[in-house]
Amino acid sequence: MQVDCSLAYALDGDCEFVFLIQAAMGTDQTLVEEELLLQPPLPYRTYTDERSGNRFLRLRAHAGVLELHYHAVVDRAADRVDLAAPEVPVHALPDEVLHFMLPTRYCESDLLGPVAQQLFGALPGGHARVSAICDWVHQHIDYRIGSTTATTTARDVFVQRSGVCRDFAHLALTFCRGLNIPARLVSAYAHFDEPPPDFHAVFEAYLGGRWMMFDPSRMAPVDQLVRLATGRDAKDVAFATIYGPARMVSMSPVLNVLAARADTIAHAPALPG
Amino acid sequence: MQVDCSLAYALDGDCEFVFLIQAAMGTDQTLVEEELLLQPPLPYRTYTDERSGNRFLRLRAHAGVLELHYHAVVDRAADRVDLAAPEVPVHALPDEVLHFMLPTRYCESDLLGPVAQQLFGALPGGHARVSAICDWVHQHIDYRIGSTTATTTARDVFVQRSGVCRDFAHLALTFCRGLNIPARLVSAYAHFDEPPPDFHAVFEAYLGGRWMMFDPSRMAPVDQLVRLATGRDAKDVAFATIYGPARMVSMSPVLNVLAARADTIAHAPALPG
Amino acid sequence: MQVDCSLAYALDGDCEFVFLIQAAMGTDQTLVEEELLLQPPLPYRTYTDERSGNRFLRLRAHAGVLELHYHAVVDRAADRVDLAAPEVPVHALPDEVLHFMLPTRYCESDLLGPVAQQLFGALPGGHARVSAICDWVHQHIDYRIGSTTATTTARDVFVQRSGVCRDFAHLALTFCRGLNIPARLVSAYAHFDEPPPDFHAVFEAYLGGRWMMFDPSRMAPVDQLVRLATGRDAKDVAFATIYGPARMVSMSPVLNVLAARADTIAHAPALPG
Amino acid sequence: MQVDCSLAYALDGDCEFVFLIQAAMGTDQTLVEEELLLQPPLPYRTYTDERSGNRFLRLRAHAGVLELHYHAVVDRAADRVDLAAPEVPVHALPDEVLHFMLPTRYCESDLLGPVAQQLFGALPGGHARVSAICDWVHQHIDYRIGSTTATTTARDVFVQRSGVCRDFAHLALTFCRGLNIPARLVSAYAHFDEPPPDFHAVFEAYLGGRWMMFDPSRMAPVDQLVRLATGRDAKDVAFATIYGPARMVSMSPVLNVLAARADTIAHAPALPG
Repeated sequence: MQVDCSLAYALDGDCEFVFLIQAAMGTDQTLVEEELLLQPPLPYRTYTDERSGNRFLRLRAHAGVLELHYHAVVDRAADRVDLAAPEVPVHALPDEVLHFMLPTRYCESDLLGPVAQQLFGALPGGHARVSAICDWVHQHIDYRIGSTTATTTARDVFVQRSGVCRDFAHLALTFCRGLNIPARLVSAYAHFDEPPPDFHAVFEAYLGGRWMMFDPSRMAPVDQLVRLATGRDAKDVAFATIYGPARMVSMSPVLNVLAARADTIAHAPALPG
Repeated sequence: MQVDCSLAYALDGDCEFVFLIQAAMGTDQTLVEEELLLQPPLPYRTYTDERSGNRFLRLRAHAGVLELHYHAVVDRAADRVDLAAPEVPVHALPDEVLHFMLPTRYCESDLLGPVAQQLFGALPGGHARVSAICDWVHQHIDYRIGSTTATTTARDVFVQRSGVCRDFAHLALTFCRGLNIPARLVSAYAHFDEPPPDFHAVFEAYLGGRWMMFDPSRMAPVDQLVRLATGRDAKDVAFATIYGPARMVSMSPVLNVLAARADTIAHAPALPG
Repeated sequence: MQVDCSLAYALDGDCEFVFLIQAAMGTDQTLVEEELLLQPPLPYRTYTDERSGNRFLRLRAHAGVLELHYHAVVDRAADRVDLAAPEVPVHALPDEVLHFMLPTRYCESDLLGPVAQQLFGALPGGHARVSAICDWVHQHIDYRIGSTTATTTARDVFVQRSGVCRDFAHLALTFCRGLNIPARLVSAYAHFDEPPPDFHAVFEAYLGGRWMMFDPSRMAPVDQLVRLATGRDAKDVAFATIYGPARMVSMSPVLNVLAARADTIAHAPALPG
Repeated sequence: MQVDCSLAYALDGDCEFVFLIQAAMGTDQTLVEEELLLQPPLPYRTYTDERSGNRFLRLRAHAGVLELHYHAVVDRAADRVDLAAPEVPVHALPDEVLHFMLPTRYCESDLLGPVAQQLFGALPGGHARVSAICDWVHQHIDYRIGSTTATTTARDVFVQRSGVCRDFAHLALTFCRGLNIPARLVSAYAHFDEPPPDFHAVFEAYLGGRWMMFDPSRMAPVDQLVRLATGRDAKDVAFATIYGPARMVSMSPVLNVLAARADTIAHAPALPG
């Protein structure tokens, strides 16, 4: 899968940028090639958060225009979908997974716990229950661009019944946490025919001892995404966090699914995408 | 039906009280006898709001203890329940009824409209739809004393799934408004075995050209209530609105259903009460 | 003052409209001429709410385009500004004014009461205190079109520190109510150089035994407005409440301050505007 | 300083507990002695989160009563208060500190940023600004037990103007984040004369290249606390997170400041802890 992402900003003064736009490296993704171009050329620093695997790009830019171009080719191992994956009882959850059951800025699982119990508490646990959550969100939340803002939370979305991919993922993962299923947000590059190119957001639930990806917006197959960053909710995985007087001028994150190449297949034999 | 209501307050200084504790007079209620006692004796003023029929009792009290005893015997005409009552199309609604479709402090029908549409929009209209709303509220909201406060709104109750009678009524009437069914709150005396005596709150929906009463808490039969006041939501029908440093010390609104007496029925029309 | 208001809607089906676009009649305004034109011509009904003086225009329209043109010439008596007007103690407030101290959908004076006390409780009461409230709102709230929506409340505005004229008025009147000063919203035609023509919202506080108008947005002199409607908050004075599938296509409420005419002056001698 | 903490729970079934009640180990605290007693005796596991230094105690208990007694003697190095400590410009902040500027469940610094700018943006930066924030919170927020719940956020506290120590700390640290000053919550044992023994919450701001502790509630000197846990907000440092049907029966976290001992003072600086 080939990623081409261009971002442009207009700066009225010095700004500090923290980007999360590089493809994550890990067991399910292999970087084949990668290129980063800044215009004007500026010193930058990258570092990887050990725990999340997120690859931060940090830089300081001055008044004027900042353009950033990122190109990567990524092999993605097919997701091992296990429809029979059970929920893990809380006492058996690994220590480092526990905090993914806590409420966060956009995911008030403390407030929505009773709703989650009413809607999904009586269902069989495991993959089937998380799928039922995704179905409910897909059926009850209207995908509508502009219906939410940067401060909209899962509770808001539950009440107003509309949102975008990030809101779909927030609400679904909030329900999971309300049922003591650890869940986290994943930002990604995805290929949409419609709407125009944008970053995508999905979520992962901890089932059967590993993280499994779900997309309640059903906008793109989850094995045709390129994973960017993983976090508690959207504020942890923002593609750009900016300190200073900058406006985004344009954004174009494009994912194309390439035809499988022989050398790629060698690295990840089972790859369909 | 016999009402005996005692209220006691401790005042740290001058306070202005506006009470709504007197049985409403109107087509469905007839006052047989009524008595109001203030301790210490204080001048007071009563007036009836022409539009709502609410009977206000207004007085000014000074530092110390204020006790109020209200006694009344009321005949209540049996509610004409019409299970086939249809909704009235908006263009046929009387002018003075229109504003009962607007959102209010505790009833954000603008926010909960999409939920109301999802849950009840496809059901047959009229009495059956309002009954379905009451059933839903009764099944999904947990009656729990202390789970809400004076500032809790219908949206809060919809999310937290718990409340008391007032919250049940607020949520149900908010759904009605979200479906363009005019609805309003009614405060009342009711007879409960459990919990201890308290004022009750139910609501009315405008169906088939008149107001019909519903109690989504199902705590008391709606024809065994004594109606106090009617309003847009709880702030309009508070049994006491107080300006000044007062604390309620005790409250005991008791309703007893008397055996029907022939002489009562005979006297009802002539009473000045 | 001359009002020319044009509204256009696109309807996908039958719609019921309730407009509040006609100049109010009352002690401070005299209608000199008035004209209402509907395209297509449709039957309509007007009625005046006795209590508020609001002049409702109600009609049913069918799929297609609806255009409405309203023209009026209005004389407005100069507002008697009384900088020494005192607050009226609660026990001396007229009964019908009391409910303008209650919280409403957009004006949570119950929640913002403690803030109002902290900010303004120690100031001298009366006109000076309400002026201080307007100053505070003007200084702390950023006028920014698009920063609020139809569901934004005074609390939201207090936190986010931005809004439009309606939000300025809501916040200021909420502070008044939190201090036991009755206050209500007024919609109006106003003349702005900037931004483009729109309905205006100001508020009135009950001081010295009468309602006095304030504009915390300071967008137009309060004696160069034409009053439309008065209510508890914005939902009571919406220029259009629509039931059905309609979209507003254009809106152009224009106020021009005419040169004083001799015959007008005869009716309201002191008029500058 | 000597800590004696007893907790008792009644369990209706199996429960998983995650406690954060052990004194933190680090540069400013040295454990002299420590004892943990469970009744009934149960297997438990402790682990330290490398990043935060929090010492988790995790265990599974069965229906019945669970009692936990914790005793520790801790030396606390006097806090190096540096009144001249400057704020660190964002571009100079260490990577691992950045996320303490993000909004969290209880600290909506995105929403309260404009308020923080208005109130404190024009003040000189550094320790003086954070002190001014603490002064403001102390002066404007009323300490009132019972005025907030487990779901109360900084925004709620800012509006309602009341709370307990946790709310004071949340609001102050939210203002810091709104000004791009990294800030985090700290739970602690403290010695109060009044109210009765409870866990305490304070916060730390990142100034002059290190974390400095502040207590906007001013309930206890910050150098007479024993630090328990550090996190983004209260949900990260809860003294007990419980999964299952348990009720707390009693709680008694007591801190006594022991007379300084010569040998302790002598050893404190050299200890590896």
